[in-house]
Amino acid sequence: MLQMHAPVELADIAADILARIKSRAPRVHCITNSVAQAYTANLLLAAGAIPSMTISHEEIADFVASADALLVNLGTFDGERRAAIDLALGAIEQRKADMPWVLDPVFIDRSPARAHFARGLIGRGPTVVRLNQREFAALGAAADSEAPARFAREHKTIVAITGEKDIVTDGERRTAIANGAALMGLVTAMGCAGSALVCAALAVERDAWLATNAALIALGVAGEVAAEGAPAPGRFASWIIDALYEMDRATLRARTRVS
Amino acid sequence: MLQMHAPVELADIAADILARIKSRAPRVHCITNSVAQAYTANLLLAAGAIPSMTISHEEIADFVASADALLVNLGTFDGERRAAIDLALGAIEQRKADMPWVLDPVFIDRSPARAHFARGLIGRGPTVVRLNQREFAALGAAADSEAPARFAREHKTIVAITGEKDIVTDGERRTAIANGAALMGLVTAMGCAGSALVCAALAVERDAWLATNAALIALGVAGEVAAEGAPAPGRFASWIIDALYEMDRATLRARTRVS
Amino acid sequence: MLQMHAPVELADIAADILARIKSRAPRVHCITNSVAQAYTANLLLAAGAIPSMTISHEEIADFVASADALLVNLGTFDGERRAAIDLALGAIEQRKADMPWVLDPVFIDRSPARAHFARGLIGRGPTVVRLNQREFAALGAAADSEAPARFAREHKTIVAITGEKDIVTDGERRTAIANGAALMGLVTAMGCAGSALVCAALAVERDAWLATNAALIALGVAGEVAAEGAPAPGRFASWIIDALYEMDRATLRARTRVS
Repeated sequence: MLQMHAPVELADIAADILARIKSRAPRVHCITNSVAQAYTANLLLAAGAIPSMTISHEEIADFVASADALLVNLGTFDGERRAAIDLALGAIEQRKADMPWVLDPVFIDRSPARAHFARGLIGRGPTVVRLNQREFAALGAAADSEAPARFAREHKTIVAITGEKDIVTDGERRTAIANGAALMGLVTAMGCAGSALVCAALAVERDAWLATNAALIALGVAGEVAAEGAPAPGRFASWIIDALYEMDRATLRARTRVS
Repeated sequence: MLQMHAPVELADIAADILARIKSRAPRVHCITNSVAQAYTANLLLAAGAIPSMTISHEEIADFVASADALLVNLGTFDGERRAAIDLALGAIEQRKADMPWVLDPVFIDRSPARAHFARGLIGRGPTVVRLNQREFAALGAAADSEAPARFAREHKTIVAITGEKDIVTDGERRTAIANGAALMGLVTAMGCAGSALVCAALAVERDAWLATNAALIALGVAGEVAAEGAPAPGRFASWIIDALYEMDRATLRARTRVS
Repeated sequence: MLQMHAPVELADIAADILARIKSRAPRVHCITNSVAQAYTANLLLAAGAIPSMTISHEEIADFVASADALLVNLGTFDGERRAAIDLALGAIEQRKADMPWVLDPVFIDRSPARAHFARGLIGRGPTVVRLNQREFAALGAAADSEAPARFAREHKTIVAITGEKDIVTDGERRTAIANGAALMGLVTAMGCAGSALVCAALAVERDAWLATNAALIALGVAGEVAAEGAPAPGRFASWIIDALYEMDRATLRARTRVS
């Protein structure tokens, strides 16, 4: 598969997209689990986006109507959230067909009911599906290296499989992002917050593959910077927010590692 | 409108009220959104108050009965919370008519359903309404500089509009508090936690206008102190809690800026 | 009552159990209150365990089936959580009778309904009941020094009453752990997170009394280490997670104070 962007080029694109988030302050509505809500909101605020989190049925369509991107995270899988997801996607389908949304199918490898629900959501056309390898397998995907690209083409979506390297593909283009820090796995909701950052990037960049790369590169680089200053997970959780807040083009250029 | 207190006088009153919170450990029951719960609880604990957060219908009246102040925050606007609010206010109206309560009508500018509900709550006599300028407009208030005082007189409440300057008025007295730090806007639930701190102050000071001033001055000064030590939002979120925990009379006297 | 372990022996056992948590990465399913969820998850991750938090009725039995220990925390006492608790305990009773679970009856001293529910849960055989003295009294226990041991024998459970000293008894053996820091009382969910850490220890140690001691010693020592580096509650909340993450045998040996 053709590598279409050199790392330094992607670093610059990430810097551009971060700058646009800061200047445009996109509104990201997050239907997300209660564990992740506060951390996700703080990461979005540090990046310059405006989070909202309601799942109330009376008002979610209003919030989605005034938002620029939507996050659908399955980490809290209660009936009220499932209905809220349906209302939010209905609002997009009827009124804002071009509004980007990201599906984060948390822990579907632990729960058949959740995996079934996630497969239904993929049929409704998420812009991006961000998940880990076990969750990707729970969607019925094969384990070979071409599976993400096939899945992306079949479902007309971006697949972002995060892990030691983050794989991002739209079926044609593919990157493996080597940035990040092991401590990111020891902070709850880091993946969820990363999916929210993808939403913020999608809100300011029409090329969803580039936007997804930008968000994951920025978060990975922020993780590396933070781990150097705070080598344990408690303080690291705050430092990565600060590293994202202070992220600049020079740091992205010096650190981006993409193949 | 008459300025009834010099800044140094208000600084001393704030120091007195903070000391009373520490020594009396008032119980503040918070019906608040799930994003804000943990941060609000930690800010209250740092100030010396005892938070509780249940919204369970079987027990909320018991919690309110043994509390010293109540926070009603609309940031999570689900049916269960609306019913809990009704039960909590019912418990106050029937059994503890003098117990102070604060209304924080989060994001009513984004949701007509929420704004309608908030207007109903104002009819039930909140001691203080704390909100931002957009939320104040969503209550149907005019935009002129006399609107807060008119609203306060009409509804027999304190209006606290937080922003670059915090306006606090009971219809007769009015302050503009210039303390604070821009980073406060980048920490989710900062406003919600501020409303909870107003509750703690109301629990130990019968003059609700002074109590509201004290809480907002203390939080603003804590924000300034924290921003000097932690210039990015991740660490700042912890530092402002610590600055409030360590707040002393000298710091309040040196930094309080009220006109 | 016989003191069966010298402090240095318990320190070594705590070090062994922490090492086993790191190497085995036990899964701890937490039915816990929304205030405590994120902090509990982060403390478990720092210790090396894998938290999950769903209360969805369709899937909780699946999560429990693939977990190694269960936390039942009553801090959010809504109908959905009560039903989730019943489903989770049913899954244990039918399929995994030896899976350990911990009951944390938060705030039952503030709510008769909650105390009644907690007494019912004790009849279902928790491995450990962790609570404070006021909550213990709300279970109908006497106030004398033999009450914990009597309660433990009657209900065939471990009683862990945390406070200035933590009392841990299985009815025969008893320790009083003097480790800890006053700041632990100023961080919301610290007790809840401690109960979750007991779960992680139970998952890797069959002697539930030793496991409970190990978890509470480790958390208390972490609190002491953290308080020396961060003397205010905002930063302390992160530092104690880091102190637990970095805990080693030498620190445990030097600091464990048990009588």
